[in-house]
Amino acid sequence: MAKILTITLNPAIDVTIELNELRLGEVNRQEHVQLHAAGKGLNVAQVLHDLGHTVIVSGFLGRENREIFDKHFHHMQFDNQFIYIDGETRQNIKVAESSGRMTDINGKGFIISEQNKTAFFAQIEACSVDIDHVVIAGSLPQGFSIDDFKSLISLLKKLNKKIAIDTSGKALATAIAMNPWLIKPNTDELEESFGKNVEQFSAQTELFKQLDSQIEHVVISMGENGVNWLNSGKALHAQPPKMTVKSTVGAGDSLLAGMLHGLVSNFTPEETLTTATAIASHAVSQVGFRIPTQDKLAHLKQQTTIKSLS
Amino acid sequence: MAKILTITLNPAIDVTIELNELRLGEVNRQEHVQLHAAGKGLNVAQVLHDLGHTVIVSGFLGRENREIFDKHFHHMQFDNQFIYIDGETRQNIKVAESSGRMTDINGKGFIISEQNKTAFFAQIEACSVDIDHVVIAGSLPQGFSIDDFKSLISLLKKLNKKIAIDTSGKALATAIAMNPWLIKPNTDELEESFGKNVEQFSAQTELFKQLDSQIEHVVISMGENGVNWLNSGKALHAQPPKMTVKSTVGAGDSLLAGMLHGLVSNFTPEETLTTATAIASHAVSQVGFRIPTQDKLAHLKQQTTIKSLS
Repeated sequence: MAKILTITLNPAIDVTIELNELRLGEVNRQEHVQLHAAGKGLNVAQVLHDLGHTVIVSGFLGRENREIFDKHFHHMQFDNQFIYIDGETRQNIKVAESSGRMTDINGKGFIISEQNKTAFFAQIEACSVDIDHVVIAGSLPQGFSIDDFKSLISLLKKLNKKIAIDTSGKALATAIAMNPWLIKPNTDELEESFGKNVEQFSAQTELFKQLDSQIEHVVISMGENGVNWLNSGKALHAQPPKMTVKSTVGAGDSLLAGMLHGLVSNFTPEETLTTATAIASHAVSQVGFRIPTQDKLAHLKQQTTIKSLS
Repeated sequence: MAKILTITLNPAIDVTIELNELRLGEVNRQEHVQLHAAGKGLNVAQVLHDLGHTVIVSGFLGRENREIFDKHFHHMQFDNQFIYIDGETRQNIKVAESSGRMTDINGKGFIISEQNKTAFFAQIEACSVDIDHVVIAGSLPQGFSIDDFKSLISLLKKLNKKIAIDTSGKALATAIAMNPWLIKPNTDELEESFGKNVEQFSAQTELFKQLDSQIEHVVISMGENGVNWLNSGKALHAQPPKMTVKSTVGAGDSLLAGMLHGLVSNFTPEETLTTATAIASHAVSQVGFRIPTQDKLAHLKQQTTIKSLS
């Protein structure tokens, strides 16, 4: 088992409110509410923990509503290396009506200062001394620019870390241009960043060829169409079992954690991709994204088919 | 200056979200968000503090999002005697659209256990030793029944405290039946609790006569129509100056704190009611409810007219 650092630059508290009907302009009463310490990097951390790895977590958090994160980190036995910002971590409010309609009211969150960034970079350097693999996942908070994101990747490269990145928009394009060790975009994210239709495998290989990419592991998630993994000229496709989708929250994060798990555990490529795909399939079949039991995992792996695309 | 205990049984974090338009079923982005440690008892405590009194605060709070309250209490120099419950203090979400439309999504909050109540009653007894005046303001949380509310009032009566109560519904009717030292309902609250129209002074005196009330101070707030104060057969009416209303949040709490201020400071009845009415008028002219400067207060008091109703 490995020790892995996950970085969540822009965490959120997911506030899921259930009520019968949301009436605009009126006083509505929450029937049920659930708060959840969220953020892609933290999701990856949870799955890695569940798979048996030791996890260090870092990024930025607001000082004033930190307790839900503290409790989660304690429960997950994460080594907490977050930098605390004055103010609150943003809340992403999800209003779920009885009809099934979901209204999201997403927060903007805190603004990172120069001082926060200096502290963060120093913290990352200090806490990653005996770490080989670093995951950066999620969006960038206000005040943390694309240049700051570049500096983070440069620092980790200088420290000889294997960097796995899951982000979107400009940050994804920036990351790809810097050739990290692994990226895990979905097709929508690639299309948004590069303005090209990349549904087909040929379009995917063409894009990375055009970009003259040196990225060792390009893992492209395509929802129910499975996963393509481009690795130094070779390519594998995994077709997951058909699942009844309950929630896709954490599915991509589960895939990333599963890939990392196989790679650090020296699984064969086929075993790595099968395991990661099975874990991600299990994630969509539940509201959370806890990993399957050993029996369940074995069953899902049996139903996952792998083929070579190269 | 006095030392006063305020009890807030069911505090809330007010989350005020500003955005252009709330579109149902879509992903909306918060343009501005403000969190605020709220609750009627805490509002009264703030105004009492601003008027120079020493304040002890108690009631129930959730352990997991306590920091916004901790910070507020520290800033206000409150002596914090709250009982902490597992879980979160409820959040009352207020979505303010550019059009001026306001949608409230109010939380239900934690559930008080028997153990919590035992701890609370013991705490109240211990922390009120050198206190004469106790304010109980706001609604009752889940698990804290009308019988528990009666027990609280009985305990404080047994301890010879002067009890000022601002609540509504069944709790208001219950409180009135127990003859506390002071109550501060508004006309809507009285009508809701007793099913009678009490707009007119005659209807108000009639109601309390029918109830055979022994309450020393009945302070009835009537919005722009001012305040009636029924005190042992005497009665005064205060007519506030015309104000441009910005927000009525905290206005009733300011009135209660102002009345208490005058009464503990041995102001004349006229001076007490004039001061309290002026402070409440100032509260409606702002988004918050900070007390006016000395000059401003003097000006507002000049514009407030008092007449005897007895």
